[in-house]
Amino acid sequence: MHFADRIIKTCEEKKSRLVVGLDPHWALIPDAFKQEHGPNPGAVIAAYMCQVVAVCAPVAVAFKPQIAFFEQFGVPGFQALQQVLEEIRKQGALVIMDAKRNDIGSTAKAYASAYFGSEQLPAAFESDSLTVNAYLGKDGIAPFLEKPEKGIFALVKTSNPSSGDFQDVKIEGGETLAERVAATLNQWNEPTIGQSGYGNAGAVVGATWPEHMKLLRDKMPRSLILVPGYGAQGGSTDGVRVAFNPDGYGALINSSRGILFPPDLAENGFKAVANAASAARKDINRAIGA
Amino acid sequence: MHFADRIIKTCEEKKSRLVVGLDPHWALIPDAFKQEHGPNPGAVIAAYMCQVVAVCAPVAVAFKPQIAFFEQFGVPGFQALQQVLEEIRKQGALVIMDAKRNDIGSTAKAYASAYFGSEQLPAAFESDSLTVNAYLGKDGIAPFLEKPEKGIFALVKTSNPSSGDFQDVKIEGGETLAERVAATLNQWNEPTIGQSGYGNAGAVVGATWPEHMKLLRDKMPRSLILVPGYGAQGGSTDGVRVAFNPDGYGALINSSRGILFPPDLAENGFKAVANAASAARKDINRAIGA
Repeated sequence: MHFADRIIKTCEEKKSRLVVGLDPHWALIPDAFKQEHGPNPGAVIAAYMCQVVAVCAPVAVAFKPQIAFFEQFGVPGFQALQQVLEEIRKQGALVIMDAKRNDIGSTAKAYASAYFGSEQLPAAFESDSLTVNAYLGKDGIAPFLEKPEKGIFALVKTSNPSSGDFQDVKIEGGETLAERVAATLNQWNEPTIGQSGYGNAGAVVGATWPEHMKLLRDKMPRSLILVPGYGAQGGSTDGVRVAFNPDGYGALINSSRGILFPPDLAENGFKAVANAASAARKDINRAIGA
Repeated sequence: MHFADRIIKTCEEKKSRLVVGLDPHWALIPDAFKQEHGPNPGAVIAAYMCQVVAVCAPVAVAFKPQIAFFEQFGVPGFQALQQVLEEIRKQGALVIMDAKRNDIGSTAKAYASAYFGSEQLPAAFESDSLTVNAYLGKDGIAPFLEKPEKGIFALVKTSNPSSGDFQDVKIEGGETLAERVAATLNQWNEPTIGQSGYGNAGAVVGATWPEHMKLLRDKMPRSLILVPGYGAQGGSTDGVRVAFNPDGYGALINSSRGILFPPDLAENGFKAVANAASAARKDINRAIGA
């Protein structure tokens, strides 16, 4: 099934726009959990994230593993990632692999094979979509858009404090670089539009920049926008409202630490995680009047 | 030892500016070699690349593994990468990990840990330097510049046909985005300069754009420039000459396919690889009059 169509259908079915980011910050995993599942750190993060996936799946459209937190553990980290991906598939949710990969054509093809598979190889880390960095232009992006059932989210305006160093640079004509990237991405998205009216070339725009969000949404009316920075990074539901189209769709709001490590985690365990995910879904739905 | 100082010292000792790119294109590895070292593709690429490293080490300043070609094989690919890294260290050459990683602060820290190690974790894939994408600005780059013995090469102007989509966009004032990135990178490089006069915040500028190279070199006089695109991608030695400073240093020229898979490979095996590397070194040295 077409990637964006599947996202929209899942939003409808789960009445949710929530993505749960899987960032296994080692220091935030409770010591008791580490002792129970250790000593191999790969086994600890796999066990923790699989439990998160199981309890959040009813309210999460997709899960977004942040690959850096697995990569830092090397081979055991990648083995953990494969277990987590299997659990996500088992729970019937989608995978947004947050890897921000980027390279020239032939190398971009190898990355596409790693996450989406190729004629020669099965996917090593099977994902439904991948975050990418578009600085190399179209031929670095095209290999990720060959299969209609797979999608991308390209960085447009990131949530971090220094995002303006380049993204806010004014280009000739007065728009910012981020706006130019959005307009170009919109062109790449057009040929990929499915029955839902949305295409497979989505964008990343941080919840920390509501003033940019409206402008960027207008430039990409038929792109899915993945919105990080909600919750722990300070983005508010007011800030995310403008990411949505008037139809109430078109954006996915990511929360990571706020759900994975809620304040009552020590007391209530994964029940606290489930509650945090439900509360985030409700909060977002209220903001958009869904 | 300071990263850039170590690069310059190795250039002097080996009388070379050559970097050998390790891109294990599966289809280009001879069938006979696959049969001898298979059936595990990870074992095949590890064996091939370790032999390349052993025969090229006398003339290569550094080796640049292209991680996508390992990543596509999943866990066996990453195990192969670790074997190749061990061989590079054994041969006393430097590692430029070509991973083009990029993310916001806390996640960039996790990537830095994966390749350079951290207080909590040893490096999973120990490297001397890493290619990075600077689209997220300074706080996405800073975590990679904390250790003086480690360096980065940030994408400025890439070698691929579509690189101009964003990199050539004119910004207010008339310069291109690539020039702005170069000027900003130069600022980030200043506090990292070692005894050699070069700093640890290097740049990637493709050999396929000699007309941009001169301009970008001038904007980053004390940055190391890693130059891909020489050889198989069509970049010429004339194109790479302008990457160097008048002192004959400051640039590293990468060749991948032309060395890994030379035309007489079937006939002469790894002797052909060694000859191709020697010829590339000589060709570059002649171009710069070294």
